[in-house]
Amino acid sequence: MNIIRGCRLGTGRGGISASKSYQGRDDVLVMAFDAGASAAGVFTQNGFRAPPVDIAEARLAAGGVRALVVNSGNANAATGEEGYKRAQQCCALVGGHLGIDAEAALPFSTGVIGEQLPMRAMRAGIEAAVANLSDAGWLEAAKAIMTTDTVPKLEFRQVLRDDSTLGIAGIAKGAGMIAPDMKAKTATLLAFLVTDARVDQAVLSRRLTTYSETSFNRVTVDGDTSTNDACVLVATGASGVIIDDHAHDFWDALEEVMQTLSGALIGDAEGGTKSVRVVVEGGHTTDESLSVARSVAQSPLVKTAFFAEDPNWGRICMAIGNAGLESFDQSRVSISMGDVPVMAAGVMSEAYDEAAARRVMQSANYDLRISLARGSARAEMLTSDLSHEYVTINADYRT
Amino acid sequence: MNIIRGCRLGTGRGGISASKSYQGRDDVLVMAFDAGASAAGVFTQNGFRAPPVDIAEARLAAGGVRALVVNSGNANAATGEEGYKRAQQCCALVGGHLGIDAEAALPFSTGVIGEQLPMRAMRAGIEAAVANLSDAGWLEAAKAIMTTDTVPKLEFRQVLRDDSTLGIAGIAKGAGMIAPDMKAKTATLLAFLVTDARVDQAVLSRRLTTYSETSFNRVTVDGDTSTNDACVLVATGASGVIIDDHAHDFWDALEEVMQTLSGALIGDAEGGTKSVRVVVEGGHTTDESLSVARSVAQSPLVKTAFFAEDPNWGRICMAIGNAGLESFDQSRVSISMGDVPVMAAGVMSEAYDEAAARRVMQSANYDLRISLARGSARAEMLTSDLSHEYVTINADYRT
Repeated sequence: MNIIRGCRLGTGRGGISASKSYQGRDDVLVMAFDAGASAAGVFTQNGFRAPPVDIAEARLAAGGVRALVVNSGNANAATGEEGYKRAQQCCALVGGHLGIDAEAALPFSTGVIGEQLPMRAMRAGIEAAVANLSDAGWLEAAKAIMTTDTVPKLEFRQVLRDDSTLGIAGIAKGAGMIAPDMKAKTATLLAFLVTDARVDQAVLSRRLTTYSETSFNRVTVDGDTSTNDACVLVATGASGVIIDDHAHDFWDALEEVMQTLSGALIGDAEGGTKSVRVVVEGGHTTDESLSVARSVAQSPLVKTAFFAEDPNWGRICMAIGNAGLESFDQSRVSISMGDVPVMAAGVMSEAYDEAAARRVMQSANYDLRISLARGSARAEMLTSDLSHEYVTINADYRT
Repeated sequence: MNIIRGCRLGTGRGGISASKSYQGRDDVLVMAFDAGASAAGVFTQNGFRAPPVDIAEARLAAGGVRALVVNSGNANAATGEEGYKRAQQCCALVGGHLGIDAEAALPFSTGVIGEQLPMRAMRAGIEAAVANLSDAGWLEAAKAIMTTDTVPKLEFRQVLRDDSTLGIAGIAKGAGMIAPDMKAKTATLLAFLVTDARVDQAVLSRRLTTYSETSFNRVTVDGDTSTNDACVLVATGASGVIIDDHAHDFWDALEEVMQTLSGALIGDAEGGTKSVRVVVEGGHTTDESLSVARSVAQSPLVKTAFFAEDPNWGRICMAIGNAGLESFDQSRVSISMGDVPVMAAGVMSEAYDEAAARRVMQSANYDLRISLARGSARAEMLTSDLSHEYVTINADYRT
């Protein structure tokens, strides 16, 4: 069994949303940490940021985190002053149950935007969640934070250090309103990562920011950055083993957990049938390569071609051309789909085999490689396709 | 009958595309102008701009335009040097038939990207088009440039001036890969406008740029700016009536033609069932208001809500928040759907009536109004919804 010492989890059903997809399942998660944990977080930069996100960020900065309280079914966003009050009430309820300061609890919400949090349901959900706190509740926790997700996302790694086994656990939820922006302190979804290592808060924060950029900030489902995105990393310290900035095996494991969860988000993207890694090489700068990768990964026309398994690579050219690169020279561009050369020197490759390209696109996972041949910077994005099911899910979401 | 003196149009079938949607219809348009016409154009800024666009822009700048040659079924984009040669060959063919310099003919293409223009088909189409040149071929012309469009788009206006009746005619095509960007000299689609007024080239150019910003540059279907967008305005001068910068009734009529065609593009957007005008007021600057309007108008989540006729206004908040405004204050925002108040001071309006909002969204055309209350600048975008049919059209486009 996977256990992170110093961390207990409990879930409960409050009945927050009347939507079918929430029926009969838990919608509140409480995570409780032993005293002495350090924590770091990255949060959405959306201008309509939800009250709980503001509260969580401020409390993280103040330190002394002891609990997280998370609900699905309601985002508590666009809810104004009343939204702040209710998020604080949730924390106070958790604090009361656990015997900790209300300010030591951080609130997180995901679901429909614009409605006030139903406090009777929250109270019931929190009470139930606190009642079944245990150190083995990871799968139930991953389930309780789901919205349109079809599968729970959780990931564990163990790292040997000084004869001790350290654990890293993470849970995350997608599956729509998923797109990073590139500012510092930006995350793209709800993700909670916990380790029982003891880590200095500044190191924890720096590593979380770095790996957000190579994981959650590199995925997109629909280009719509949420009001509620948050990723929090807690180090309980309960193992007694100190991890510093040079513990490469530990940090590699953390990055792997974050990248695996990111991949799982795209694998479960709303209506998604494909996970396509768009790799852009040969840019002048990483930002430049990333802007091309992002333009391709977010284009509705490219994404419908992915869905159709149609090597309509002209749409890829269009999307590359829309990245707004200065002094762009299309005659240097090459493209390949999996191992099939598609474009060379700005025109169709002489070795292009449409049937072979189509076969690549029939896989559930493949790489689309673009070379700009104007520098040496590289960047990549992971994206899903745009399917009928995406439209169905988002046209029916509230019913 | 609508006639623009000094302008003749002819269409022909070359059989450029094997795709079903082109079967049995003309795919080449030739427009011929009497000597002495002035002309102006705005063109896509996409980095993968097609060879014909480069050629048309250069020739327009050189002056002396006598003909346009337009084909659907193939965009002649991402075709490199060979693409330039073939576009020039098309112009030379038209020049030979009409007895004008090849350089006086401007090429335009729309259709699949990445394949060389089939010259045998182009030759046949051009020959047929030249053979039926007439001054009354506007409807056939509008049909010949269609790709995924379901209806031809044409518009006429007459303006009385000095006892003469001046004509303004315009044709345009959409219906996907439609999204403006905001640089000068940017257009978003294929549109050809002709008047028999005599207009100084500099005035013509300035007016076209101005009205592009209040018409074609304010529509979006999918946020994907094409490689081939072009809008050309020709003044044949054949009426003998001079129009200067102060002829407000004439310029108003031109702007109306361009706005009507823009509206028709959204009315015929790929898979579109709605035309929604997103009006943003109270920005510090027009650019700021426009960035909010664009973020809302391009959001897949907002557009699926339009399709579902679901007043899920939280998604509108999310999209507003993603426009990246500095020092944004969500507590100042108000939103209304048609005449139904939705949000006031950053939270749900006390007067909000969801059933009434849903009734507004059941119309084919309505306004979504957003006030930022931080300045006095206003901007608007016209957008379509994101439907199952959009996915179907773009998943099946080449088959």
